[in-house]
Amino acid sequence: MRILRAKEFAINREVEYGSVEQNKVVQNIIQAVIREKDKALIKYTKQFDGVQCANLRVSEQELDEAYGQVDYQFLFALRKASENIRDFHERQKRNSWMDLQEDGSLLGQVIRPLKRVGIYVPGGTAAYPSSVLMNAIPAQVAGVSEIVMVTPPSTNGEEGINPYILAAAKELGIQEVYRVGGAQSIAALAYGTETIRPVDKICGPGNIYVALAKREVYGVVDIDNIAGPTDITILADQSADVSYVAADLLSQAEHDELSTAILVTNSSELASQVQQEVESQLNVLPRKEIASKSINENGAILIVDHIEEGIQVVNELAPEHLEIMVDDPMSILGRIENAGAIFLGRYSAEPVGDYFAGPNHILPTNGTARFSSPLNVDDFFKKSSVIYYSKDAILQNGEYIMQLARQEGFEGHARSIQIRLEKEGE
Amino acid sequence: MRILRAKEFAINREVEYGSVEQNKVVQNIIQAVIREKDKALIKYTKQFDGVQCANLRVSEQELDEAYGQVDYQFLFALRKASENIRDFHERQKRNSWMDLQEDGSLLGQVIRPLKRVGIYVPGGTAAYPSSVLMNAIPAQVAGVSEIVMVTPPSTNGEEGINPYILAAAKELGIQEVYRVGGAQSIAALAYGTETIRPVDKICGPGNIYVALAKREVYGVVDIDNIAGPTDITILADQSADVSYVAADLLSQAEHDELSTAILVTNSSELASQVQQEVESQLNVLPRKEIASKSINENGAILIVDHIEEGIQVVNELAPEHLEIMVDDPMSILGRIENAGAIFLGRYSAEPVGDYFAGPNHILPTNGTARFSSPLNVDDFFKKSSVIYYSKDAILQNGEYIMQLARQEGFEGHARSIQIRLEKEGE
Repeated sequence: MRILRAKEFAINREVEYGSVEQNKVVQNIIQAVIREKDKALIKYTKQFDGVQCANLRVSEQELDEAYGQVDYQFLFALRKASENIRDFHERQKRNSWMDLQEDGSLLGQVIRPLKRVGIYVPGGTAAYPSSVLMNAIPAQVAGVSEIVMVTPPSTNGEEGINPYILAAAKELGIQEVYRVGGAQSIAALAYGTETIRPVDKICGPGNIYVALAKREVYGVVDIDNIAGPTDITILADQSADVSYVAADLLSQAEHDELSTAILVTNSSELASQVQQEVESQLNVLPRKEIASKSINENGAILIVDHIEEGIQVVNELAPEHLEIMVDDPMSILGRIENAGAIFLGRYSAEPVGDYFAGPNHILPTNGTARFSSPLNVDDFFKKSSVIYYSKDAILQNGEYIMQLARQEGFEGHARSIQIRLEKEGE
Repeated sequence: MRILRAKEFAINREVEYGSVEQNKVVQNIIQAVIREKDKALIKYTKQFDGVQCANLRVSEQELDEAYGQVDYQFLFALRKASENIRDFHERQKRNSWMDLQEDGSLLGQVIRPLKRVGIYVPGGTAAYPSSVLMNAIPAQVAGVSEIVMVTPPSTNGEEGINPYILAAAKELGIQEVYRVGGAQSIAALAYGTETIRPVDKICGPGNIYVALAKREVYGVVDIDNIAGPTDITILADQSADVSYVAADLLSQAEHDELSTAILVTNSSELASQVQQEVESQLNVLPRKEIASKSINENGAILIVDHIEEGIQVVNELAPEHLEIMVDDPMSILGRIENAGAIFLGRYSAEPVGDYFAGPNHILPTNGTARFSSPLNVDDFFKKSSVIYYSKDAILQNGEYIMQLARQEGFEGHARSIQIRLEKEGE
């Protein structure tokens, strides 16, 4: 893991939009699903997953069987995590409000849940039950009444789906699950087929084809953010525990060769100790190959003159995950402008947030913490403004409204006011 | 204006993504601005606006002069409107929160304003001071410290900008204004030039090139929704005032030939009266040509059997603006699932909300009220999760976290917990 001065480090923020060919493939799949509906879903599932699908919908019996099949201890941990995630997101709920004006008018904002939401869950080795929780629970807390899950069948030629995914769905009470993945499943959620009714919003991570399909259908339905590779930044001084710092860097590095793990520190002693410790922990890590590629190609230990400079570097990096392991971490919290999730102190390892504590693990990647937020309950609400104008209000303010409308050349707007003033002002 | 049964009406929701050529033009402009910065801005301003720009930045003096130049009554109305808009949006503000857990952990959500926001304001005849208020005030209320406005110079060969736009900026205290428009201004806001520093988010409506450029830079910066043509739906029974209904339909129809104005009613008497009244009001409307094209091509009076069915039709239409002119409008509010802004009763003409009452006039168009919201203060906030885990918490819950991580194959995640349990558990 290279050590360099923070000033010498260049942030790389390539956004992945896919090749022209990949975009073309995705557009063709979407058009085929619009045209041929279920038939297209079955065709592409045969083509891409090698499975001849008899039933797109996963039956209640399959959900029950999966639930019985998975490890009891896993289920118990999953339930504990669900409770924490639900508690945390419950605190994000909001109420509609009304403001009574002196002239008798009412102004307000109605806040309602989306009605129907689709969640994409990847299959194969990237099938993560924790992501089912993180996507579905905020929607449930918001009050979304219909949550639909799509996930590709296993590629062993059979219709089966990873039982841990189905168990997580069952645990949350999700009953509508379809065995279909890829761009075709996104098209089905956006436009609907004979079997799958269209949704209002699509969430969840997927491969490049899923991501491009989500971009493509955005506007027809809403989508969550398109996730890039994961990253962590640790801001630490000489008080930090070397083995914790190294382990936490590696816990991000093992995700993906494209993951980024960065240590920012004012202690060159810590820097070289962490450098050694990462090497030694790497040697015994099962996902060593992935993690070492991530560490060597994207990882860095950045030396700053003082923690003040470190804070500035952190704000420029706008990390997805930020761990602060300095003497008094709370004193720094107020200075952090850009970060998806902030982990404070020696016990707040990043996996605590990935799986268990309650906050969402779907976070802004690729520096987008400058303007985006963790997935949260607001993402499943929509708002409507409400205006109930009184007779007094229109009589008192009508002239102003006409003035502003006429300046912009909208005489028709002005007349809709004038006609009322003439009739009601009598 | 055609009258038909609601069941016979097909909703048209074509989304405008521009032609391949338009997209190519926009991509080239963006690349040129990334490469040549200010030089490209000056080149395109010459090419598209016919203006040789000496100073991209609008001077303080120009802002002051514009302010002195506009009508005093207009300024007074503008100020009144600003106050109302500010009051309404102040009620949307939110606080960061912290939740103290029994085991000594702290979980929370930090809510912060975006730092720097760019607002696009169209030039020429589509230059609307009201849009300056509606875009900038929510950002100011959120606490955005740097608000930048870009707007093209008048096309009379001089550098001047519509004084009403500049006066609105001055009124709000916006000091950073640049005379540049089109896709090139969006590229400048996203990537920065020598003169214009990059922003975190770009808001505001524009022509097709501006819309495509916003789509293109999304991810590098945040953008607001891409607005389609405006629409209104009026739900009315026989108690509604015919002349008000007609005037309000026309106030949307005059915006644009692509605007949609729809009346949904259970009274065939009202239907035919409104049909006649629209004709007669149309005849004396200055923007008659635009409005009649909108009314004839997109407008419709939809007959329903009863108001219940009308509510259902409204929810399917998911209108941008919804007026409810029935006997007891409040009784219907709770049944409306999808609408950008809801205007209740006979005095709540849609222009009341366009200009003055306080709620935002930037609303979800094209049926997107199913999943999007009026522009609001949340659009200028970003959130970070905060996790401060206690020693007790990690000791009590570490096993669950490892269980979940290992099920997903992330041994490195599990070890970052295990190393702490081993060290702290002693």
